[in-house]
Amino acid sequence: MNYNMENIQLNSSERLDDLLTENLKIIQSDEVFSFSLDAVLLGRFSYVPLSAKGRIVDLCTGNGVIPLLLTTRTKASIVGVEIQDRLADMAERNVRINKLEQQVRIVHGDLRNADKELGYGAFDVVTVNPPYLPVPNGEQNINEHFAAARHEVHCTLEDVVRASSRLVRNGGRVAMVHRPSRLVEIFCTMREYKLEPKRIRYVHPRAGEEANMVLIEAIRDGKPELRTLPPLIVYKNKTEYCDELLEIYYGQRTELIQPPVL
Amino acid sequence: MNYNMENIQLNSSERLDDLLTENLKIIQSDEVFSFSLDAVLLGRFSYVPLSAKGRIVDLCTGNGVIPLLLTTRTKASIVGVEIQDRLADMAERNVRINKLEQQVRIVHGDLRNADKELGYGAFDVVTVNPPYLPVPNGEQNINEHFAAARHEVHCTLEDVVRASSRLVRNGGRVAMVHRPSRLVEIFCTMREYKLEPKRIRYVHPRAGEEANMVLIEAIRDGKPELRTLPPLIVYKNKTEYCDELLEIYYGQRTELIQPPVL
Repeated sequence: MNYNMENIQLNSSERLDDLLTENLKIIQSDEVFSFSLDAVLLGRFSYVPLSAKGRIVDLCTGNGVIPLLLTTRTKASIVGVEIQDRLADMAERNVRINKLEQQVRIVHGDLRNADKELGYGAFDVVTVNPPYLPVPNGEQNINEHFAAARHEVHCTLEDVVRASSRLVRNGGRVAMVHRPSRLVEIFCTMREYKLEPKRIRYVHPRAGEEANMVLIEAIRDGKPELRTLPPLIVYKNKTEYCDELLEIYYGQRTELIQPPVL
Repeated sequence: MNYNMENIQLNSSERLDDLLTENLKIIQSDEVFSFSLDAVLLGRFSYVPLSAKGRIVDLCTGNGVIPLLLTTRTKASIVGVEIQDRLADMAERNVRINKLEQQVRIVHGDLRNADKELGYGAFDVVTVNPPYLPVPNGEQNINEHFAAARHEVHCTLEDVVRASSRLVRNGGRVAMVHRPSRLVEIFCTMREYKLEPKRIRYVHPRAGEEANMVLIEAIRDGKPELRTLPPLIVYKNKTEYCDELLEIYYGQRTELIQPPVL
């Protein structure tokens, strides 16, 4: 057994899932938002410094899925920031289950003040899978955890971009997954906070369909010039993933989605 | 013979090409910039008002290829604006050769003042295939016509966006083809001039390659929400066009690249 369940409790609604990569395990719960394809793709798309001296911070980390996935690609130290206590607690147990306490630290706090605690410009890379939807005027999803994961309850897009800009060093990278419908706002807000989008990849559910997800990498104080990678198609028919997607999912393929190591 | 060569002269370097759609002919010359795939795709991508009351203006019209192509899709009146006298003259002869004087008018002038002459907010649609590259610091392409078509000699991206914003009515559309590498600047400049990008399509030379062209449609004072259409792949192998591209080229297919008629 590669993982450690000693002194770690699962709450009543929780289950232990397989992260499908290098025997990683992850606690999830149907009562809160479970990780999905977005997180897996971001975990593969983002640039990583390889050495143990590298520093990465993952904002809106949820149950810590992106830090866990990143450990398979780098020896850099990784901080995950989560504002919801229930999720921060789950993330912390996920680190211990996978015996990753030496590499990953979970901080229960508000990303809007994160640079005060973690250091201005202290990171080589920021990753973030933020809530996609503005807070609607009318009713929200009743479950507060779902609402916070999907809607900008705890932070707006501008909060996320500002925090990323403050945490990353000059020349460092910020990788985000979001909805293409908000791309204009994302680009304009990133520029406002000196993050220059440099690399983008669209995800289409099937060939011939519109994109429903986009991966974006920006460089702090980067020179303007955007590369648009080949599109990633998720399904090859009604139920089966495309080969490339499967290879990304299982961690066997990173060359197309991963940037060259600089 | 569907075209009219009476009283129309070809200069020594010019030739009469077939536009491959509805027997349209076009005068081109190797000494100036010939139309290319960019123009054909923009001519199919852009929204068109269908009735004769509709008004369209094509900026940086060159030899008038986009107005010619648009006449196959609409009865709307079309104005083409071109600053270079040699190209404006060629465009004017192209209108006459194809007997389109009733529908298309060529204006030899500067797009930066076009709203003064043609009317502020006077158009339902603006199309534009502007020069893609900023003026380099060092040497330019020696031929001034090539330089003006490729580099921002006569107008910058901001000039083009500002002019488009002034010419189009509220709720009207601006369709542009450009390089994806400049997309961040395009989005931010459009927003600055109240043009909201609403629909985008990337063109990749081959499957698995980065995009080298992008079609963008913005709406004046539109509500933020961007649709990302399926990518368009140009070649299926080293030399042959993909079926969709051929169908677009020959005007047999517009449903995927063309927006719904509103």
